[in-house]
Amino acid sequence: MYHFYKKQRPEKEMIFGVRAVIEAIEAGIELEKILIRRDMSNDLSRELLSSLKGSTAPLQKVPSEKLNRITRKNHQGVIAFISPVVYQKIEDIIPVLYEEGKIPFIVALDGVTDVRNFGAIARTCECVGVDAMVIPVRGGATVNADAVKTSAGALLKIPVCREQNLSKTLQFLKNSGIKLIAATEKAADDYNEVDYTVPVAIVVGAEDVGISDENLRLCDESVKIPLWGTIESLNVAVAAGVIMCEAAVQRKLGRKLGK
Amino acid sequence: MYHFYKKQRPEKEMIFGVRAVIEAIEAGIELEKILIRRDMSNDLSRELLSSLKGSTAPLQKVPSEKLNRITRKNHQGVIAFISPVVYQKIEDIIPVLYEEGKIPFIVALDGVTDVRNFGAIARTCECVGVDAMVIPVRGGATVNADAVKTSAGALLKIPVCREQNLSKTLQFLKNSGIKLIAATEKAADDYNEVDYTVPVAIVVGAEDVGISDENLRLCDESVKIPLWGTIESLNVAVAAGVIMCEAAVQRKLGRKLGK
Repeated sequence: MYHFYKKQRPEKEMIFGVRAVIEAIEAGIELEKILIRRDMSNDLSRELLSSLKGSTAPLQKVPSEKLNRITRKNHQGVIAFISPVVYQKIEDIIPVLYEEGKIPFIVALDGVTDVRNFGAIARTCECVGVDAMVIPVRGGATVNADAVKTSAGALLKIPVCREQNLSKTLQFLKNSGIKLIAATEKAADDYNEVDYTVPVAIVVGAEDVGISDENLRLCDESVKIPLWGTIESLNVAVAAGVIMCEAAVQRKLGRKLGK
Repeated sequence: MYHFYKKQRPEKEMIFGVRAVIEAIEAGIELEKILIRRDMSNDLSRELLSSLKGSTAPLQKVPSEKLNRITRKNHQGVIAFISPVVYQKIEDIIPVLYEEGKIPFIVALDGVTDVRNFGAIARTCECVGVDAMVIPVRGGATVNADAVKTSAGALLKIPVCREQNLSKTLQFLKNSGIKLIAATEKAADDYNEVDYTVPVAIVVGAEDVGISDENLRLCDESVKIPLWGTIESLNVAVAAGVIMCEAAVQRKLGRKLGK
């Protein structure tokens, strides 16, 4: 039987076998996600689960057929994907930015799922001087080699923080004196009417449903791009780019009020 | 033998067989491109080639193996792809815009090849009220169902003009009183420093090589997006979106000089 999987990953991006995955975790190798066989339960898997504590990589329980499709080698019920990105902690980054006299410029993605949109946003972040990107552990695009490629390498250059709970992270940013600006078509203000020269985090939502209600409520301001056509919204990477470029121009060239 | 072609198109998007393609052309069906067998030469093909005169669809001579891979049916050495877009003539559009008292807002793509970038640019065009898109017959993205999908349907809503010779079209726009603004990283002016409230055509180049030298020389002004990172350029759909949104905001909300 011939198998073709569009998203099949090269083996060099994987680690399989219980012992190998445990050792990868203990060696501090950044994992993107870990798949384990749904019905796995023996001493080795207990050791695995125990070593996973503290790792930010999401764990997915899957049928063994799924693992067999990913590799024909003896995976022993566990396959981990190596992340091309070494994640950083936003709690570490923000104080350093302030200490260096910088005005933090953060972009937080609330569930952008398409790898190419994600890559294009990362590219824009690097180009306009964003200090860090915040992404959720679950519900976002897969951070794989494709993402790195479409980001033109940006994902390897700017700090990326992968957070278990995006709402808590947004609250942390707020408590750190950072203004949360939601990018949403339902906003009252146009994107060029707000001040980005203070510490800001631009919050961008998923392609289909936008920013979650919970996260939207946390935001201090919201901005939209005024549109005059019949299609209701821009592509998310384009929309994020438009707002980020306005922010960058305001920050670097100075804001002209009443623009 | 199992064949898998990532870009294989559904049969409903194709017409094959010499007589069927001739009839499609005579019925005025918009074709995206026509593939004919390289070594084809008989009376029927002469009739086909004669009926093709005046069609703007590009003709490609290909080995018969290529045609066999596209369909196993009896294609008789010719396969045409139906365009989802009905093209318009820029020479017809510009006078109408002026007659209606509009200030033309055109976007011309000089070889954007990626279908998703092309679709995202078309989506932005529709959203910000661009009057027409100009694309070249050769060297651009394939205008297929994928392009329409990634454009969120924009390609079916805004006029698209497919031009044999983009330089001649740009010259025509110039002669029609339209300022040609090139989007290029080598520009002297930032994107928010020029005036888009006059008749304008924003010229956007290919992902890899940008705007051709010939077309760049035709442009009246050039604009760049100021960047502060290490990656040299934004994704082309993001860059085009940033400039188009600035143009749209200036046009609809009024330009504030010295911004």
